[in-house]
Amino acid sequence: MAAAVEPSRFSLRDRLTTFLDAPPFQAAIIGLILFNALIFGLEAIPAVVEKIGPLLIALDHLILWIFVAEIVIRLAVFGPARFFRDPWSVFDFIVIGMALLPATGALSSLRALRVLRVLRLISIMPSLRAVVDALLRAMPAMGSVAALLLLVLYVGAVIATRLYGTSDPERFGDLGNSLLTMFQILTLEGWPDIMRATLETHPFSWLFFVPFVLIATFAILNLVVAVIVDSMQSGVQAAVAEEDQKRDTELMDFEHDIEASLARIEKELAALRASVKPKARAAAARGSRAAKTGKKRKR
Amino acid sequence: MAAAVEPSRFSLRDRLTTFLDAPPFQAAIIGLILFNALIFGLEAIPAVVEKIGPLLIALDHLILWIFVAEIVIRLAVFGPARFFRDPWSVFDFIVIGMALLPATGALSSLRALRVLRVLRLISIMPSLRAVVDALLRAMPAMGSVAALLLLVLYVGAVIATRLYGTSDPERFGDLGNSLLTMFQILTLEGWPDIMRATLETHPFSWLFFVPFVLIATFAILNLVVAVIVDSMQSGVQAAVAEEDQKRDTELMDFEHDIEASLARIEKELAALRASVKPKARAAAARGSRAAKTGKKRKR
Amino acid sequence: MAAAVEPSRFSLRDRLTTFLDAPPFQAAIIGLILFNALIFGLEAIPAVVEKIGPLLIALDHLILWIFVAEIVIRLAVFGPARFFRDPWSVFDFIVIGMALLPATGALSSLRALRVLRVLRLISIMPSLRAVVDALLRAMPAMGSVAALLLLVLYVGAVIATRLYGTSDPERFGDLGNSLLTMFQILTLEGWPDIMRATLETHPFSWLFFVPFVLIATFAILNLVVAVIVDSMQSGVQAAVAEEDQKRDTELMDFEHDIEASLARIEKELAALRASVKPKARAAAARGSRAAKTGKKRKR
Amino acid sequence: MAAAVEPSRFSLRDRLTTFLDAPPFQAAIIGLILFNALIFGLEAIPAVVEKIGPLLIALDHLILWIFVAEIVIRLAVFGPARFFRDPWSVFDFIVIGMALLPATGALSSLRALRVLRVLRLISIMPSLRAVVDALLRAMPAMGSVAALLLLVLYVGAVIATRLYGTSDPERFGDLGNSLLTMFQILTLEGWPDIMRATLETHPFSWLFFVPFVLIATFAILNLVVAVIVDSMQSGVQAAVAEEDQKRDTELMDFEHDIEASLARIEKELAALRASVKPKARAAAARGSRAAKTGKKRKR
Repeated sequence: MAAAVEPSRFSLRDRLTTFLDAPPFQAAIIGLILFNALIFGLEAIPAVVEKIGPLLIALDHLILWIFVAEIVIRLAVFGPARFFRDPWSVFDFIVIGMALLPATGALSSLRALRVLRVLRLISIMPSLRAVVDALLRAMPAMGSVAALLLLVLYVGAVIATRLYGTSDPERFGDLGNSLLTMFQILTLEGWPDIMRATLETHPFSWLFFVPFVLIATFAILNLVVAVIVDSMQSGVQAAVAEEDQKRDTELMDFEHDIEASLARIEKELAALRASVKPKARAAAARGSRAAKTGKKRKR
Repeated sequence: MAAAVEPSRFSLRDRLTTFLDAPPFQAAIIGLILFNALIFGLEAIPAVVEKIGPLLIALDHLILWIFVAEIVIRLAVFGPARFFRDPWSVFDFIVIGMALLPATGALSSLRALRVLRVLRLISIMPSLRAVVDALLRAMPAMGSVAALLLLVLYVGAVIATRLYGTSDPERFGDLGNSLLTMFQILTLEGWPDIMRATLETHPFSWLFFVPFVLIATFAILNLVVAVIVDSMQSGVQAAVAEEDQKRDTELMDFEHDIEASLARIEKELAALRASVKPKARAAAARGSRAAKTGKKRKR
Repeated sequence: MAAAVEPSRFSLRDRLTTFLDAPPFQAAIIGLILFNALIFGLEAIPAVVEKIGPLLIALDHLILWIFVAEIVIRLAVFGPARFFRDPWSVFDFIVIGMALLPATGALSSLRALRVLRVLRLISIMPSLRAVVDALLRAMPAMGSVAALLLLVLYVGAVIATRLYGTSDPERFGDLGNSLLTMFQILTLEGWPDIMRATLETHPFSWLFFVPFVLIATFAILNLVVAVIVDSMQSGVQAAVAEEDQKRDTELMDFEHDIEASLARIEKELAALRASVKPKARAAAARGSRAAKTGKKRKR
Repeated sequence: MAAAVEPSRFSLRDRLTTFLDAPPFQAAIIGLILFNALIFGLEAIPAVVEKIGPLLIALDHLILWIFVAEIVIRLAVFGPARFFRDPWSVFDFIVIGMALLPATGALSSLRALRVLRVLRLISIMPSLRAVVDALLRAMPAMGSVAALLLLVLYVGAVIATRLYGTSDPERFGDLGNSLLTMFQILTLEGWPDIMRATLETHPFSWLFFVPFVLIATFAILNLVVAVIVDSMQSGVQAAVAEEDQKRDTELMDFEHDIEASLARIEKELAALRASVKPKARAAAARGSRAAKTGKKRKR
């Protein structure tokens, strides 16, 4: 109706919405992202850059501007409110916007982050988006365990700095180094080398490292278990619930059949009794009515 | 009937089919494969090769030609269409065919792949084939997570090449090196050494490596969970379904008993009523018929 | 009643209890612990200590005395019996008490353990406390496997000391070193380097290390499985039990309906028979009574 | 009866059986094993051996002879047939017997295996025995996957020997070295170092190592999943079966009640009909008998 009042403006927006959501357009964008990924990959091979470097940069710029145009159109069509309400649109906006920042001086290493543009593949392909959504959903289940792990890591780093900061400054020199080293121990990578390096000056340092390894591993194990149990439980519960649903229907059918049969018998009996002893009719009718009322009340 | 028309041709094919599927023939092939595996193993021990090298090569050739003959017979008996429809037959064909390729010059290292012939053990032993089939079936469950992991790996490799390509050319020199190094970090093997090598020139490189390790580990964890949950769910669902099947049968028996009993009562009542009040006979008969019709309709 | 007799003493204790359990006070303590954690962290950064070291130490002391005061008040208010019955109170007591010990001479490294005070965050935040409680509850499930693992570790360490003590004294010199090295192998960290170091003098040492790695890994796997299965089972059992509870109620309702209906029919029949053949009344009544008695007996 | 005929012989055997199974005797043996473990531990500390070495050896011998005596008595009391039927008795026999072998010359390293005597703790403590029994029961579930893993390991080792035997003889020199190295790669320990060592001479060696790592890790993952699912399934199945058992009983009670009630109604009806129309008595009796027969047939 509103479209009939302002036909030109609405029909353009409608047509653009239809165009943006159309499978061929989506496929074209996916193709562009994959092509861009290929270009980024080729740019990372010196031999290729020597030969066709300028061409790659030109293509990269061209694709970037197509993406910018797409985002601008989507922003215009959906309006900022609706556009920024979808977290995946925000993700696209940031990933594309990053490429437009001036990447000079201190921020020169941000240049490398332009490659993150390829991650738009996640936001545009439903199956990948579903995986990331599932990963994010799994996070709360591990929230408290992760907080505990972080606390243990922090306390471990502070203690390690105090104990081994002077004897092994490269690894435990200050809080930052220690946090990194303790995180390394959390992944168990090379923890014996780190411990042995301190054993010379601190013969009891194993009293710090072995318990830390045990606690950290046990906490990580429980993090893993939390994720597994969380996934499983919902899965099993769904399976059990589905089976139950099916059986409930069967049981209800069965119940209905029997109750209908019983009701017929009661009715027949009442009729029979009435025909045998007419003066008992009133009582039988009352009983039958009571039975029906009882059932209605219960449902 | 057709066999009666062309008895000689059909009976040969039939007899060969029976022969190829007979347990003794299968056992003989398994024995040959294991013997071939032993020969390959002995060929990998220099001291043994020095003594009986030529004998080993001769035996290897002999076994190879037996296998070739077996494949050719199977191909002739089943016909190409049926032979190549079975993926395990294709596997056998490739694995044996590989040994017949000329392995000189650039392809000399293909010679080593002849050992893959031992993998025919998988295609011929049902228990091993079942395991591989199960492994392949588990793959779709991890498809999307694996695609995401690959994307993260690729993006990580491109970024790493840009950031650390000049300072650590051996590990991050070009896309290939970086992909290999990032895959190594994915297995957590020696990731702290790789990070520490870049920390000297890029003091903030931990901002790249630690998140990559966290994301990669979390994604792999979810890959593992996907496989476990997938296996479990079908297992639990089967267990629940089996129990339900059993109970459904019991419930149905019970239902049948009660309904039979009720039907008898209704019939008896109808008969009783009829005998008491002959003029009610028609109505009772109608009711009984209605009840039966109702049940028939529902089933 | 007692409060009415000694109003002043009881009201002070009551008011203090209310104060100690009030959310604002709890939030203030949490804030202080986090602030203390920040101070410990800053003390672990040499550049910061150079500038505001004395301030940090003064703040640390101030916070410590606030914590001491809190513990003393809690101890006074709840009384030692009730205070020490709660394991988390004991934990707080030890963690704070540790900071008051003289940390000189041989005990100087205990100074570093003052940071453990930050772990009070666990005892004061219910969500973290729940995680630790869950971790502790998971322990019995792994008790026997852990005992077995310990036994294997001990036996392995003694054997390794006997076999490789002279050829690799740094790793297997005495029982302590060997236990540490075997624990390292248990985490799989660098086990091939350890084995290869012994292979030169003991060419068959792989007969010791490979089985140890296999047994240890298999035992750890079963430890993990025990934790997962234990968590899962209770979860699944709860889900199944809940569904069953629901269904039992439905079934009981159904049973009740049918039995009421059948009882009415029996009563009606009895009445009918009585009206038809008065002399059968006594028998019918007896049957009806028997039925009721039978049901009462069974419940 | 037989004991009455030969009282002296039977009563000694009986008394010895009672004595061997009595808790105090079992506790004494456990105490001796733990004491023996302590002695073995002390023998692994050079400083202690220097001081009280001869005492330790004497105590060790004493305990060994007590164990030998215990085994001999058990063997005599239970008879060889019954003794060797229990695998744990065989385990005890081997572990003790090993200490009596002459450990000189080529077998000198067998001396270290005497420590395995401490593993008797497993056979004597029911909780540890249960764990080992469970571990052994978990094995069949992983049988086929383990066989596949072994096959992949063997084929990988043969191929690696052929490809890298000349360029990296220390790791891939012959089949034995290669098997050990491939097993090391299976545990992921240091696999990038091994691959990088071959990359110089074989730039495409990653085509061998990366797939091997992927296949091996995936197979191990499925081995772990097999164990988890196997444990879970039986656990869940038991939980579901238990609930079902309970419900089946309820359902059967319910069924019994209703069928009894229906039978009473049918009987009453038959009686009623008989009293109303005596000539219908025979038919009703027939129907009632048929119903009973039908039920008997079904059970």
